[in-house]
Amino acid sequence: MSKRITIKDVAEDTGLSIAAVSYVLNDKEGVRPETRELVLSAVERLGYVPNYTARGLASHKSRLIGVCSPQTEPGSKLMFDNPFYSKLFSSIEYECRQEGYHVIVSGTDADESFLKLAQQRSLDGMIIVGSYSKEFYSDLKKANMPVVLVDTYQNPERFHEVKVDDRRGGHMATKYLIDRGHRDIAFISGALREQGVTQLRFDGYRQALEESGIAYQKRLVFPGVVSFESGLDCAAKALDQSSEITAMFCTADIIAMGAMKQVLQRGLKIPQDISIMGFDNLNLAEYTSPSITTVAQDIEMKGKLAVEIILEDIDNRISEPRCIELPLKIIERESIRRL
Amino acid sequence: MSKRITIKDVAEDTGLSIAAVSYVLNDKEGVRPETRELVLSAVERLGYVPNYTARGLASHKSRLIGVCSPQTEPGSKLMFDNPFYSKLFSSIEYECRQEGYHVIVSGTDADESFLKLAQQRSLDGMIIVGSYSKEFYSDLKKANMPVVLVDTYQNPERFHEVKVDDRRGGHMATKYLIDRGHRDIAFISGALREQGVTQLRFDGYRQALEESGIAYQKRLVFPGVVSFESGLDCAAKALDQSSEITAMFCTADIIAMGAMKQVLQRGLKIPQDISIMGFDNLNLAEYTSPSITTVAQDIEMKGKLAVEIILEDIDNRISEPRCIELPLKIIERESIRRL
Repeated sequence: MSKRITIKDVAEDTGLSIAAVSYVLNDKEGVRPETRELVLSAVERLGYVPNYTARGLASHKSRLIGVCSPQTEPGSKLMFDNPFYSKLFSSIEYECRQEGYHVIVSGTDADESFLKLAQQRSLDGMIIVGSYSKEFYSDLKKANMPVVLVDTYQNPERFHEVKVDDRRGGHMATKYLIDRGHRDIAFISGALREQGVTQLRFDGYRQALEESGIAYQKRLVFPGVVSFESGLDCAAKALDQSSEITAMFCTADIIAMGAMKQVLQRGLKIPQDISIMGFDNLNLAEYTSPSITTVAQDIEMKGKLAVEIILEDIDNRISEPRCIELPLKIIERESIRRL
Repeated sequence: MSKRITIKDVAEDTGLSIAAVSYVLNDKEGVRPETRELVLSAVERLGYVPNYTARGLASHKSRLIGVCSPQTEPGSKLMFDNPFYSKLFSSIEYECRQEGYHVIVSGTDADESFLKLAQQRSLDGMIIVGSYSKEFYSDLKKANMPVVLVDTYQNPERFHEVKVDDRRGGHMATKYLIDRGHRDIAFISGALREQGVTQLRFDGYRQALEESGIAYQKRLVFPGVVSFESGLDCAAKALDQSSEITAMFCTADIIAMGAMKQVLQRGLKIPQDISIMGFDNLNLAEYTSPSITTVAQDIEMKGKLAVEIILEDIDNRISEPRCIELPLKIIERESIRRL
């Protein structure tokens, strides 16, 4: 390796002590403006790049944020099989980069391994996507580090949260279909887990039916996993079982894509024969033919806010746990018709 | 934070010196089996997790791999707008995780910032996706660290490479269409850059036309960027300009999705009116209706091999630069018909 410029070189060049240079570089108070300028101009001229590995030990700051995104869906070993996660992660990476932080992302298979990662890497903070066990959250608390939870309804330790109102989203989607004359609405979803996002969308679905005087029918509910293949399978079951279905509320756009494929493969038309409602507003929802009407959440904003909160907490600028709920809205496209 | 177990605790517990414990943990030779067992059982019992930040300084190993994936497409600030990158990255992350490495990914905007990242984080190795300037490669060489290039044809410094034969891919795709009776084949692509992947696919396209005695027509070539929107626009131009086009060879599935949307929006049918050939075999190619016939590259394998090579190099098990070329094949789906 070509000789690396170290803090020692900066000290020699400026005639200051290493401690004094370090003081400036760590942005401590009480540094005289002339000294600061002297150091910063030497840093630029010499091309000095601080080594975070060394610096992390001294300052206890690694400028690394960990993102934990679980493989919740059985059988999917890769993190980004659902484009929702790739979009969220892209946004987190972008925001961190703008602020001089880097991101370590781990698609942990087990709760434990992520906490291990946090210790191994001296992370400054963690963004945790999805729902985990109670024990995981209490272990997380013990790690005593800024944490932002994204998309969870289990928060016994009162961490910061960024989420949407999933019950309301389920209600909006169902009401939108009911308002257009649909009564036999299949519910096609990921796994229904207590306090999970899907369960709340389901609660919203039931509530909207009830308010409109439509009897809830358990046989119209098809839980699977959040994937294209599961959407394909669940829609097949729905179509085989109930010929009266006129609409499908799919709790994720990736599921909606599978359901659409199933419907079209059978020679049925969308929306003439079957209307399809999605959730998320992935780019994909616009790419398909017909494009998918969906409950839009601002995934990019979700990532951006998670980063903003974690950086504020790292800088000790937050005293109370924050809970931010992002708005939802329906984006009307081509996959739903009025009966 | 609850008291963290350190190497000192392991030393006290075993009655060994810190140096001796470190010796075992760093897997050095010449350790007696009894000593090794003593240390490892204490590590497990006490729940000691090595801190890579501290360890990195001592061993000069960070167990961190950097992945550089550029925003080559103007206007796209997020890394994973093209699912090709999210799939490749997912695979790299998965393989690294299995081997006890973590991944820092950076969607650098400038060449320089990634080299800075490598120094700041004391990366053990770098996986570089895409093509860069000559200066970037020579700077990379100076960093004197294991590097694997993915999908580039510029390799003046003889780094390891993993790629596909893009010229052959372009040839295969075009020949497949010609064999099915197509002669007026639009070429819809990303930017044509010298030594870039797209340029080579274009060369293959021209060669296949020539071999079949079909005159190359510049007006059937529509370079844009690698995105859905660009596919939509370029296909519009193609359809507006040449009514004789019967097929479109799109050099990426994400472009093919845009082209499909344009064709279907105009009331034309795929493949009855226009045949579409994609490239990459993203999951998406299967999700659309009709599904997309495409030149398949094994993106997961590309990531896996890049990781295998970099880890071998880190462990000094490679002496010569490796160049691996993965096979391509056409996956037949529903978007192409025989004339």
